[in-house]
Amino acid sequence: MQTLQEKASQWSGVDTADAFAIDDTNLFQKLGLQTFVNLSTNFYTRVYDDEEEEWFRSIFSNSKKEEAIQNQYEFFVQRMGGPPLYSQRKGHPALIGRHRPFPVTHQAAERWLYHMEKALESTPDIDADSRVKMMNFFRHTAFFLVAGDELKTQKQQIPCKHGASKPAES
Amino acid sequence: MQTLQEKASQWSGVDTADAFAIDDTNLFQKLGLQTFVNLSTNFYTRVYDDEEEEWFRSIFSNSKKEEAIQNQYEFFVQRMGGPPLYSQRKGHPALIGRHRPFPVTHQAAERWLYHMEKALESTPDIDADSRVKMMNFFRHTAFFLVAGDELKTQKQQIPCKHGASKPAES
Repeated sequence: MQTLQEKASQWSGVDTADAFAIDDTNLFQKLGLQTFVNLSTNFYTRVYDDEEEEWFRSIFSNSKKEEAIQNQYEFFVQRMGGPPLYSQRKGHPALIGRHRPFPVTHQAAERWLYHMEKALESTPDIDADSRVKMMNFFRHTAFFLVAGDELKTQKQQIPCKHGASKPAES
Repeated sequence: MQTLQEKASQWSGVDTADAFAIDDTNLFQKLGLQTFVNLSTNFYTRVYDDEEEEWFRSIFSNSKKEEAIQNQYEFFVQRMGGPPLYSQRKGHPALIGRHRPFPVTHQAAERWLYHMEKALESTPDIDADSRVKMMNFFRHTAFFLVAGDELKTQKQQIPCKHGASKPAES
């Protein structure tokens, strides 16, 4: 059976070494907090304005934009060499667990990445090398979450309340 | 609705400030890699030898001890100020997602913590201050995972294949 990590590499086309090249430099020290705030603001401004793909925007309709921005930049800061802002406020990032309410499909991953690529390009102070490293990390992680999302459809071994039938394996 | 973090604090009795006091010092720099390896080795040696609570030991019966040890110390190292060893090898820790196959009950959390407390006490070079900080973090995180485990039983809104009924919200 493929691991989450193997699926992530296969689907994203980004191998592990490239995905985690973000750890070769301390990107937080290099770019600074404000750059991460700007990046996430640019990203969610795009997402909440996504009129081309209404299904994608609707995934975020129950979340407040300001909160989404803070959650994201705090996680990025923590993951890319800065202080554990996210964990201190909200506990372990638990990326798969916290994405559980959302349909993290291949298509949703691609749309997320589309907006993130544009956001990276439109955020000043992110140099080309940092951009490539971050994009590889994001691409790999997006598909890691698609792999995590598929866990939801496994292990649905709960007896069905609507009928007398029992699940196949019991 | 309570957040995962709020449930973790309530059930563990450890507030957020105490849980994340591990971030006040760089415990990896203070204790060194070998201490973390020793701690996880002590912990899993206890767990795999747990004959008093067979149900607890059986949770780990499909996992190799050496692998469990490495997974754990790499995560601890990464979370407590060291290099992201876990993420580079296996991707995001995704604590809730990766614990999904296991029954992370209140009782299991307490047994895990029981062994961890003993393991901390029997690992040389872990001073009292570090031990308290780590134990608070572990206690909070264990109950964070109990809260995460309960997500599994929510959102069972999948159309029932056995009958014609549809889920409540559709």
